Amino acid sequence: MRVLSGMRPTGKLHIGHLFGALSSWVELQEKGHECFYFVADWHALTTHYNDTKEIVNNSIELVKSYLAVGIDPNKSTIFIQSEIKEHAELTLLFSMFVSVSRLERVPTYKEIKQQLSDKDLSNAGFLIYPVLQAADILIYRATGVPVGEDQVYHIELTREIARRFNYLYKEVFPEPEPILSKVPKLLGTDGRKMSKSYGNTIPLVADEETLKKMVMPMITDPARQRRTDPGNPEKCPVWDYHKAFGISDKDAEWVKDGCTNAKIGCVDCKKLLLKNMKERLEPIWERYNSLTDDYVKDVIVEGNKKARQVARETIEMVRDAMQLDYNFLRK
Amino acid sequence: MRVLSGMRPTGKLHIGHLFGALSSWVELQEKGHECFYFVADWHALTTHYNDTKEIVNNSIELVKSYLAVGIDPNKSTIFIQSEIKEHAELTLLFSMFVSVSRLERVPTYKEIKQQLSDKDLSNAGFLIYPVLQAADILIYRATGVPVGEDQVYHIELTREIARRFNYLYKEVFPEPEPILSKVPKLLGTDGRKMSKSYGNTIPLVADEETLKKMVMPMITDPARQRRTDPGNPEKCPVWDYHKAFGISDKDAEWVKDGCTNAKIGCVDCKKLLLKNMKERLEPIWERYNSLTDDYVKDVIVEGNKKARQVARETIEMVRDAMQLDYNFLRK
Repeated sequence: MRVLSGMRPTGKLHIGHLFGALSSWVELQEKGHECFYFVADWHALTTHYNDTKEIVNNSIELVKSYLAVGIDPNKSTIFIQSEIKEHAELTLLFSMFVSVSRLERVPTYKEIKQQLSDKDLSNAGFLIYPVLQAADILIYRATGVPVGEDQVYHIELTREIARRFNYLYKEVFPEPEPILSKVPKLLGTDGRKMSKSYGNTIPLVADEETLKKMVMPMITDPARQRRTDPGNPEKCPVWDYHKAFGISDKDAEWVKDGCTNAKIGCVDCKKLLLKNMKERLEPIWERYNSLTDDYVKDVIVEGNKKARQVARETIEMVRDAMQLDYNFLRK
Repeated sequence: MRVLSGMRPTGKLHIGHLFGALSSWVELQEKGHECFYFVADWHALTTHYNDTKEIVNNSIELVKSYLAVGIDPNKSTIFIQSEIKEHAELTLLFSMFVSVSRLERVPTYKEIKQQLSDKDLSNAGFLIYPVLQAADILIYRATGVPVGEDQVYHIELTREIARRFNYLYKEVFPEPEPILSKVPKLLGTDGRKMSKSYGNTIPLVADEETLKKMVMPMITDPARQRRTDPGNPEKCPVWDYHKAFGISDKDAEWVKDGCTNAKIGCVDCKKLLLKNMKERLEPIWERYNSLTDDYVKDVIVEGNKKARQVARETIEMVRDAMQLDYNFLRK
């Protein structure tokens, strides 16, 4: 399987990104698939066209996070979208046979417009961004795309575009499949939806002190007001974190019994969580902190080169299929 | 002034193109302006995405026509749009801050949709084509664009996009001015609107015999049924051709007097026209026929190279302005 996925460089990552995407990226890499993981910086423009000054820094930051969680540049190709102009070319070509009304019917089009009512999303770039996304995927002729539930529709559109291209011109594109992984549902530390704008997210890269400061005051089962009140793990956000961070069966028993029978306090429970989180996150922090600017730069330069080569091959196939091939100029 | 203009490669040119555009292109070149003339093959896709097999041939044909009418590759840059990927990149970037409703308000959007009701124009490419056009112009930081009346609105939109970019990011683009030349109004040989689909156009490149076959049966003043009926040049399509092909004052007197007083027949009048047309067109035919494939190829390769260089410079400026500059990767 050839796997492709990417993230928008909109700021520091948090543990939601780890469980929502990056863990499964690493898993796919370790299964031996040919993986392409990119920084979707052009996509960042659809919502941030008038606030671009952090995009390049965030892109580098994102690559560092990819490396920190275990994406291995010797196994996977890490690259930056805007460095591969073929994404733009293929977007333009696809836009010729994707109808405006089809794009207006993409559920996220209206949804996100409503959600981000403080942003100007009337731009044409936001309308055609599912076409750009299809180009991102198909320019690498990817067959598998790890996505969240909310992106499945976009993969469906990508499949439609691939089919339509193959039908209109010539068989060039595989129809990529969405790869859905089981994503643990984690709330923010205050019990609300995890969101950077609420300040309730736990950063992917931090240190023990910061982690402690975020975890210890976490909201727990609201019914457990006092140490002596019995609690219900199923109503406690901390319990979800325990499961996400792989609590052992024995510890799980200890927490469940201790909580429901008021044998342990929330502080005890969180101390255990902290220990497990540290075990999972510390190697990420260490890797992150060991990355030198030069190394990161080399990874990007190499990744861009590899990605560009595949993208160019695909564009050659596309131009040949569309009979837009000026190769005689190069002979 | 830096001049840019282009034509869609949709088939053989006719004399409408000569007077509508190419004559003024040559004139601008001869005035010493820095001219970029291109083949708008991506634009051809907006209306012909499902009928692409002639596009490359038509593109070559178009370049040959440019050369035949006197565009001199030593003075002007002749190139093919799709060979310069930066057009697609800039289109994508511009689409981030041009609103969908703004594009829907472009007058030609609904007009052409109605006119070409046999074509599928519901595609996103057709909606964003004025953005592609703006990118075509601004990627060369052109200051003058020879256009027909019907394209003035698109230049206005291009100016808007340039202003908006300069305001949002940094002063990069000049605001190009439309260059309107006096275009003689020529009807088709059957007296209807000149249109390839009516088969009433006189090809730019032909031979004397073909020209004669097209000119001699031309419709004249409908009131002049017989040789002895007086005619009115102002109601005669042939008279418009006379003016377009630069009839001398003396000959013009002869025609006006001869027609209005029934002293000459339409055949006499057309013979004069034929002579003047031949004088103007024969050098074009000769140049056209002298072009070798290798020469045309070299012109395109050289033109593409020069165009690409300017386009890349502009993209560098754009990325710097938008703070999307990954140049540190290349250091």
